[in-house]
Amino acid sequence: MKINVLISPLNAEEMYFAGKNTVVIDVLRATTVISAALDNGAKEIIPVGTIEFAMKISGDAFGGHRLLGGERNTKKIDGFNLGNSPLEYVKDVVDGKSIILYTTNGSKAIVRAKFSENLITCSFYNLNAVADYIVKMNKDFEILCAGDNGRFSLEDTVCAGKLISEILKLKEEIELTDSARASIALNKSFGKSITKMFSESEHGRKLIDNGFKEDISFCAKLSKSDIIPSYKDGVIKKFVNEQPA
Amino acid sequence: MKINVLISPLNAEEMYFAGKNTVVIDVLRATTVISAALDNGAKEIIPVGTIEFAMKISGDAFGGHRLLGGERNTKKIDGFNLGNSPLEYVKDVVDGKSIILYTTNGSKAIVRAKFSENLITCSFYNLNAVADYIVKMNKDFEILCAGDNGRFSLEDTVCAGKLISEILKLKEEIELTDSARASIALNKSFGKSITKMFSESEHGRKLIDNGFKEDISFCAKLSKSDIIPSYKDGVIKKFVNEQPA
Repeated sequence: MKINVLISPLNAEEMYFAGKNTVVIDVLRATTVISAALDNGAKEIIPVGTIEFAMKISGDAFGGHRLLGGERNTKKIDGFNLGNSPLEYVKDVVDGKSIILYTTNGSKAIVRAKFSENLITCSFYNLNAVADYIVKMNKDFEILCAGDNGRFSLEDTVCAGKLISEILKLKEEIELTDSARASIALNKSFGKSITKMFSESEHGRKLIDNGFKEDISFCAKLSKSDIIPSYKDGVIKKFVNEQPA
Repeated sequence: MKINVLISPLNAEEMYFAGKNTVVIDVLRATTVISAALDNGAKEIIPVGTIEFAMKISGDAFGGHRLLGGERNTKKIDGFNLGNSPLEYVKDVVDGKSIILYTTNGSKAIVRAKFSENLITCSFYNLNAVADYIVKMNKDFEILCAGDNGRFSLEDTVCAGKLISEILKLKEEIELTDSARASIALNKSFGKSITKMFSESEHGRKLIDNGFKEDISFCAKLSKSDIIPSYKDGVIKKFVNEQPA
């Protein structure tokens, strides 16, 4: 079993993921939003790579069962039902609904990895559950950090490092690439207080400046959900205890 | 003064570098080769992005004053005079010569950053000299890690972190981006023994497997050269004490 970390989606073309097992991480905030939405009863999340495609597959034809969620420059997009704050994705709003999700980094990273044999999403919010899942799967895994417009994201890489550290507690004999070892080191340096790491990070500070301080607290919660968001045929659904929900 | 680290050349388009001050790092081995060649009297290094272009600008027309150097998959390219080992670039071979350099990552990274206002190269071999240069310049700097075929390179990022740590010893008030802070942390985790870090890294192990163990020892030498390789109009020449040589 081997674990590799891709620091940015630009590190790999779409076809790189064919046949691979992939975990996408975008802790601020898309993969936290996905966990929160499924936790609160959302039927499914449909990640999309463009706003135009989000608009195209939404609409009255679906009788209000589909919600449009996401952000551009951290803020809700005109015409969308929801932004990209996990605090918006409460039971009253999302229960039983399909949610089309467009975000600057996270939804695009998921779409980029769509040819993966197994494709799941991880955030601090469901980290231990993902570690358990990977150990049970016992296959090689790629951890894809959604990054920041193609560049390094400290919080995604630290989350990757914390995930690998949890996996190593459960299973010792794992081959790690250089980027996986670096992620573990970054978790040791920055991951002791997730809230502090967020507050000092570029993207965290931007969110605080734009009024999303409570999102930081929510996204810093560690392993509050056991749900594994699992992508298949364009749709993310929950996958618990290796049985599709 | 602000310092940013680009983990991979894919993180930025060519035009990103226009007007910027950039340091390119490819410690295994292109930027170490450049330092060694200039140290041993090479007149200039001409970094190129393709083998075809390297071939095109070499040739008998230059009366043997131009040498072709570089590698593909760590090994010397058919028809080239030199490979990519710093041990080949000795005085007897390179003194007074122009060297056209093509490598998988390093020469391409330099070409990608060619629109920079100031563009220099750094390796462990000339690290302190580069730190001095940057502090004297007192401008914002981009540190571009050449990476590994577009992906993360542990040794380049550790070198970036060591360079920033040296700069911080000379000048405290510097704004650091997340990737710069991460590079410093990686240097703390992996940079204590450069030889050990190389020997455990993916690229280092590949070089050792291909018979380049002595290159690892050479590339691990810290601050043995005071030369700043400086790129201008397609050519790298030495730049000492802020006076062109």
